[in-house]
Amino acid sequence: MAGSSFGTIFKITTWGESHGAGIGVVVDGCPAGLSLCEQDIQAYLNRRKPGQNRFSTPRKEDDTVEILSGVFEGKTTGTPISLLVRNTSQRSKDYSEISSYYRPGHADYTFDAKYGFRDYRGGGRSSGRETIGRVAGGAIAAKLLKELGITISTYTLSIGPVTISSYDEEEIYNNPLYMPDAMAAKLASDYLNQCMEEKNSSGGRIECVVKGLPAGLGDPVFEKLDANLAKAMFSIGAVKGFEIGDGMSVASATGLSNNDAFIKLEDGSIAKSTNHAGGILGGISDGSELVFRTAIKPTPSIAALQNTVNKSGEEIEISIKGRHDPIIVPRAVVVVESMTALVLADALLLNMTSRMDHIHKIYDFK
Amino acid sequence: MAGSSFGTIFKITTWGESHGAGIGVVVDGCPAGLSLCEQDIQAYLNRRKPGQNRFSTPRKEDDTVEILSGVFEGKTTGTPISLLVRNTSQRSKDYSEISSYYRPGHADYTFDAKYGFRDYRGGGRSSGRETIGRVAGGAIAAKLLKELGITISTYTLSIGPVTISSYDEEEIYNNPLYMPDAMAAKLASDYLNQCMEEKNSSGGRIECVVKGLPAGLGDPVFEKLDANLAKAMFSIGAVKGFEIGDGMSVASATGLSNNDAFIKLEDGSIAKSTNHAGGILGGISDGSELVFRTAIKPTPSIAALQNTVNKSGEEIEISIKGRHDPIIVPRAVVVVESMTALVLADALLLNMTSRMDHIHKIYDFK
Amino acid sequence: MAGSSFGTIFKITTWGESHGAGIGVVVDGCPAGLSLCEQDIQAYLNRRKPGQNRFSTPRKEDDTVEILSGVFEGKTTGTPISLLVRNTSQRSKDYSEISSYYRPGHADYTFDAKYGFRDYRGGGRSSGRETIGRVAGGAIAAKLLKELGITISTYTLSIGPVTISSYDEEEIYNNPLYMPDAMAAKLASDYLNQCMEEKNSSGGRIECVVKGLPAGLGDPVFEKLDANLAKAMFSIGAVKGFEIGDGMSVASATGLSNNDAFIKLEDGSIAKSTNHAGGILGGISDGSELVFRTAIKPTPSIAALQNTVNKSGEEIEISIKGRHDPIIVPRAVVVVESMTALVLADALLLNMTSRMDHIHKIYDFK
Amino acid sequence: MAGSSFGTIFKITTWGESHGAGIGVVVDGCPAGLSLCEQDIQAYLNRRKPGQNRFSTPRKEDDTVEILSGVFEGKTTGTPISLLVRNTSQRSKDYSEISSYYRPGHADYTFDAKYGFRDYRGGGRSSGRETIGRVAGGAIAAKLLKELGITISTYTLSIGPVTISSYDEEEIYNNPLYMPDAMAAKLASDYLNQCMEEKNSSGGRIECVVKGLPAGLGDPVFEKLDANLAKAMFSIGAVKGFEIGDGMSVASATGLSNNDAFIKLEDGSIAKSTNHAGGILGGISDGSELVFRTAIKPTPSIAALQNTVNKSGEEIEISIKGRHDPIIVPRAVVVVESMTALVLADALLLNMTSRMDHIHKIYDFK
Repeated sequence: MAGSSFGTIFKITTWGESHGAGIGVVVDGCPAGLSLCEQDIQAYLNRRKPGQNRFSTPRKEDDTVEILSGVFEGKTTGTPISLLVRNTSQRSKDYSEISSYYRPGHADYTFDAKYGFRDYRGGGRSSGRETIGRVAGGAIAAKLLKELGITISTYTLSIGPVTISSYDEEEIYNNPLYMPDAMAAKLASDYLNQCMEEKNSSGGRIECVVKGLPAGLGDPVFEKLDANLAKAMFSIGAVKGFEIGDGMSVASATGLSNNDAFIKLEDGSIAKSTNHAGGILGGISDGSELVFRTAIKPTPSIAALQNTVNKSGEEIEISIKGRHDPIIVPRAVVVVESMTALVLADALLLNMTSRMDHIHKIYDFK
Repeated sequence: MAGSSFGTIFKITTWGESHGAGIGVVVDGCPAGLSLCEQDIQAYLNRRKPGQNRFSTPRKEDDTVEILSGVFEGKTTGTPISLLVRNTSQRSKDYSEISSYYRPGHADYTFDAKYGFRDYRGGGRSSGRETIGRVAGGAIAAKLLKELGITISTYTLSIGPVTISSYDEEEIYNNPLYMPDAMAAKLASDYLNQCMEEKNSSGGRIECVVKGLPAGLGDPVFEKLDANLAKAMFSIGAVKGFEIGDGMSVASATGLSNNDAFIKLEDGSIAKSTNHAGGILGGISDGSELVFRTAIKPTPSIAALQNTVNKSGEEIEISIKGRHDPIIVPRAVVVVESMTALVLADALLLNMTSRMDHIHKIYDFK
Repeated sequence: MAGSSFGTIFKITTWGESHGAGIGVVVDGCPAGLSLCEQDIQAYLNRRKPGQNRFSTPRKEDDTVEILSGVFEGKTTGTPISLLVRNTSQRSKDYSEISSYYRPGHADYTFDAKYGFRDYRGGGRSSGRETIGRVAGGAIAAKLLKELGITISTYTLSIGPVTISSYDEEEIYNNPLYMPDAMAAKLASDYLNQCMEEKNSSGGRIECVVKGLPAGLGDPVFEKLDANLAKAMFSIGAVKGFEIGDGMSVASATGLSNNDAFIKLEDGSIAKSTNHAGGILGGISDGSELVFRTAIKPTPSIAALQNTVNKSGEEIEISIKGRHDPIIVPRAVVVVESMTALVLADALLLNMTSRMDHIHKIYDFK
Repeated sequence: MAGSSFGTIFKITTWGESHGAGIGVVVDGCPAGLSLCEQDIQAYLNRRKPGQNRFSTPRKEDDTVEILSGVFEGKTTGTPISLLVRNTSQRSKDYSEISSYYRPGHADYTFDAKYGFRDYRGGGRSSGRETIGRVAGGAIAAKLLKELGITISTYTLSIGPVTISSYDEEEIYNNPLYMPDAMAAKLASDYLNQCMEEKNSSGGRIECVVKGLPAGLGDPVFEKLDANLAKAMFSIGAVKGFEIGDGMSVASATGLSNNDAFIKLEDGSIAKSTNHAGGILGGISDGSELVFRTAIKPTPSIAALQNTVNKSGEEIEISIKGRHDPIIVPRAVVVVESMTALVLADALLLNMTSRMDHIHKIYDFK
């Protein structure tokens, strides 16, 4: 099926394989009149670029974005914005061996089961490079949100056994692991060094906090805001868990401990005294901070010996060579942020049509 | 927006409020030629019916389903199947009080924020009764899956502090909590009695295991099978966490411990020696059992005193009266199963078009 | 596939067969706060009701609509509006014969080809009764448009060889053929009498004019306003042609004769001196009247002898008995109007998100 | 809104403006295993290329297509196919003047009304160059259809007052007007010369005939095959009328003259003795030839003097300079064919899921 589009009104369509000509995205439905230049997008892409530290694959990829359409004289025109990133660091020989067998934890086997064959070079469409399109599109959504005063903070919450114990927003960009806690970042770094020595890899968690979101976004039944966030997060390869607010731990909570009391703020507005709900009630944003977490599995490509089978069904032992990150989490931080921005931009636009009084604000026929 | 439809090819559209004339669903895209009668659907609805034990609201609701269209001489015709359940146990006076204030943990406030006002009777569209449409539609999807040899087991994994420690499939239907472990069911029952005495409520977890699913379902990027399951689960009110396979715990795993080795079975087919992945790789089913869990928050309607504000913004104290389950989990088990069936039926149909050899099997032009 | 939904934001899903339990529609995405009662919808349904004159089947169908959800205290709530019309005039024996053969001009053969069998009673899902759901949904869309000052006039333009030569809006509802020209209505009536004597039937054309539509509705490429109108019209059974503005005759026009000059009105606004375009330029409404026509084929059910084959492939001669209109056009007038209202309501809502300045009007974050 | 995608399962998303960096399309949902190379697509693009005769703009555009993704070792992989055509013949100065006024018959005014401003260079997104994406995508759909034995013939039926009076399939590609009648082509050529002398332009009609289409494609209600064809045709700029089979003329036909009798062929299969219906009954293909026509308005850009207003609302006189075709029809022939192929490929894939016996053919679980 056609499974490469995301969103209803603010919609992206991504394309591209790891070792094809390039990776790209078409952003359709962005309102006209948003200021936009390549640097807005490049700044996001740079956050997922490899080779920035020793925990990231040493491949040199420029990942320079080109805006091909939809922007005129510095503003979006309301027509589709096509973005292209050429692949420039393809070493197809690195990957020729994996054409013959199924790497554990990868999509090699399932692609063959689905399509009958696969573009095996660097994982093809299931490569992490696929996320370039999401990040490029998400950068535009984030720009729109920012113009409305909505900001997203995304960071590494834990790596293997190391969880942050303090939060310093500025620190997020001071360490290569995007942790808001310098001490935790140091410990996590030590842990990752150990993983690499053991030819192994590590999982981790990413947390995301959105500020400035108005109440009313999301729809009551299937298009709940949290449902679309959950889909967005699980659409990112390697995500195995998603929780909002108190998340999985609500299972052992009680109504008294889990309910958030409504209160009146000094300015007369209504708020909640706590935020166990994570900013969503009944699938609709409640005006509190939106808070959620995802769990990312360890990089499946490891140099340690593993058992698997080849396409002939013979059991073999393999050691995966090549340039692989020992952890996916730090580079996935901006992917989580981008998908979040896409969900929120779409929900903002969709909510405009929820009430007759909104409609009268736009169509003023006197 | 139009947010009451779910699915692409096998699609349901639900409607109805707690205290309106009824609840219903239109199932569109069900293939022609599936045997179907009202009893197939009623059996599913009976599993979510209230009043079956002391942990469930004593409301008497018949919830009898009527097939209004789409079935002829005992078989689906390929045209939309409309199902109707009349509301018969409406006591609107029970709910009149809540029109004036915002119940903690409920969608009262967010509905007002979104729509400007709300049908406050029994929660209106955000009532648990909304799930009747999902279950009625899911029963049809499950029938289709069963005809293809695909079966779904869903059960209560934990209630408050009590988690199952053994698994007996038959036991699931022997206790009112739908737990596959009689001992755990006894302990959970004691715990719920205690919650009720304290005018409190409890959360819990539901687990779902699917057997017989072929490899190849789901699409690589945004329409990953796990992404659609995540959306389906979070579209159920009260769900706050979702995990597939090892779930959130992958964050502290390593590549060596988390990867599943491929092996060759005696019949020559390829399988995995473990199932940390929960049956999905790269968003596509891998032929193993599909395994996932959801966390359900405690019933927000509790009789204990709570603080909140009314529509005028005054802070007040409330005690929610009326007929409320002290736990949502047991009645949500069949909702989880129904949403799972809907996701899988849609994925099965969508995957038919993935390969040219499939197409030649259907269109044989000699 | 799931083919019974229409619209993106303002969406209807229809269901029901001629001789099933009933016909219905779910209207999803209607903004909250629109005044609505059953009479608003019934008034539209009455316009398509049969048995109102001698050119319409003498079946007595009450076609009384029930609102099952989505309206509270006289206003739409923003949640799905479910409408039900019970079938009450089913004489299944009338139709038993047609189960064995393929009626010319009907969908009997194609339903069998597609689904393997069919609900043959009264045409099943391909019956004209299917349009009840469209009209019920369209009545709500028309109510929304009217609140914004947008009105739709739909009428019979021609019947067989008789075309209107004058236009009197009030006359439309004075004659049973919905013609705005009393003289033409008289001639058409004579022609239809003659058709009936000859056991034959007639085709005709319907014209639709929309006033008060703002410029800017529709999108430049695939979601052109005229493209969606064309789809809407061709989704009505029996429509074989659609033209907007000068329509098919543009083929023999020149640029000089077909272009509409822009002019400045006294109030300073911009308009067009002519309207060959029919109110749409580049797929987007231009602020002029929207004008289009559809051609409706003659009723295929005729009492005259016809050749066809039965399901065994034997060639036979048939004469179709039962209660059939000698012309579809008059009853289709309100169907055309309803589908038009649905397209326009959706386009109005979708256009709200086209510009950043619109978005700032809704989300005012001080 | 996001209006640049077309199709449900076999879906294209187009992007690009006349004077931006390029034009492109993402084809998503194409089944894996279809042989495909750039030449397959280039052959279609060459049919719409300008500068091939004196009735086509003398701009030199190479319109060379590059496949950026989705094809591996000469076969489609099932993942999105991204196609790029760079714009190489941009003379922005040609168009600077039109930024200040509204050209009659063009979308200048409606774009401003919708978006607040526009990319005025060469018509921006409303340029005929937008169709490059459709043709590139349609070429892939046509390749898929051809592998199943389905072929499409599209040709110019009339230009101004000249209509073909004979049909010779080979002649279509022998004259620059794509007419299947050499005599008519000669007359039409004379007529166009006269139009050009008068600084005027001409409209015309395109006819399309599809052979080899199986019965059963399309869905009964809103997704009728003819409804999707109508939308596809009206999504092409300049189309003002669409008719299938006998089209608009059914309005003056009778049931006896318009019904097609079913007959039995010598091989035992069922067919129709005539084809007034144009190959579709009840929205579903009936196994006959699919036959339809579109009317294309005259090129609105003409050198003759025209009245219009500028953005300040002043009435002015203009003469449109630059390189413009005196007729759109010949270059639109391949656009009509491409959109047809897209509709049919999607309908073919969607119909695979219509029956349980189809499903059992794909999922054979023994």
